Amino acid sequence: MRRELEVKLRADDLGRVAAAVERMGGRLVSSVVEEDVYFAHPCRDFATTDEALRLRRSGDSAELTYKGPRSRGGGAKSRAEVSVKVGDPGAAAELLKGLGFAPVATVRKRRSYYRTDTAMISLDSVYGLGDFVEVEALDPGIGVEGLQSIARELGLEWRPVEETYLEMVLRARGTPQR
Amino acid sequence: MRRELEVKLRADDLGRVAAAVERMGGRLVSSVVEEDVYFAHPCRDFATTDEALRLRRSGDSAELTYKGPRSRGGGAKSRAEVSVKVGDPGAAAELLKGLGFAPVATVRKRRSYYRTDTAMISLDSVYGLGDFVEVEALDPGIGVEGLQSIARELGLEWRPVEETYLEMVLRARGTPQR
Repeated sequence: MRRELEVKLRADDLGRVAAAVERMGGRLVSSVVEEDVYFAHPCRDFATTDEALRLRRSGDSAELTYKGPRSRGGGAKSRAEVSVKVGDPGAAAELLKGLGFAPVATVRKRRSYYRTDTAMISLDSVYGLGDFVEVEALDPGIGVEGLQSIARELGLEWRPVEETYLEMVLRARGTPQR
Repeated sequence: MRRELEVKLRADDLGRVAAAVERMGGRLVSSVVEEDVYFAHPCRDFATTDEALRLRRSGDSAELTYKGPRSRGGGAKSRAEVSVKVGDPGAAAELLKGLGFAPVATVRKRRSYYRTDTAMISLDSVYGLGDFVEVEALDPGIGVEGLQSIARELGLEWRPVEETYLEMVLRARGTPQR
């Protein structure tokens, strides 16, 4: 399973961030609307084990992703992750329900993916939560310092948001993750 | 979830069955080698609940299938089933393992799919188990009598095999399904 190293930062002005990304040589990969449904495990409390199962629908494509527990350091987080493309997201949801997985929350966002030499930078407008920038190291070897340096170039303050979008959505509606 | 109605019969001579299918107007849809990996659930005993989770690899394509409990009648079986295509079978297996599903057995077979007006007929040479014919009603409304009538046309004795290939593989190696 691949490990990812990333940080999430709040943004006031995504237009200004986009301009900064382009000055850094970042290229827009795609702009999409993503609908992420998170599922509860039939016999593990994901809030305790710090795992997640997500079914993402984006345009005509869909993928299922498992995320392992986070390890944190310097505000950035690192976690194992594996994704698989699925054909029909409705059938995938039905299959998961058959196995006892229950949908707990949906996160909807408009996301623009930019790629630089060292990172994948996502500019996110998350429904109900606001605007954020996620910076994921293409090579986790750049470490937290590498992410901090990119944040500086983007003109963003280094105040990492450690919660996931799912946790924010659940907190906003007053329901703990199950 | 779709329900399927099907019966499995032993065959001595698949070549003769293939000729009978063609006389009935059956058309060969595809001939494939299927490798089916079955998984145990992290907190349900599928042998008790009579469910199954299968990852099937066939050539370049792969699909994940959930099967609900069987209801039996007249030797035929009916069960809810839902399948979803997956991109990378290796990633799908890794994702399932992350969620706590464990591979329990693999069933390998050479299968020819024939389609008639009323049924999908599979001629199976199953590694280690022998030759079988599975007849699945396209319209479950034809009932067990409809399946019996097809078996007669195929020249096959109506002695339904109620075990699944998975159960046969597990029995052959002396391990119960977990």
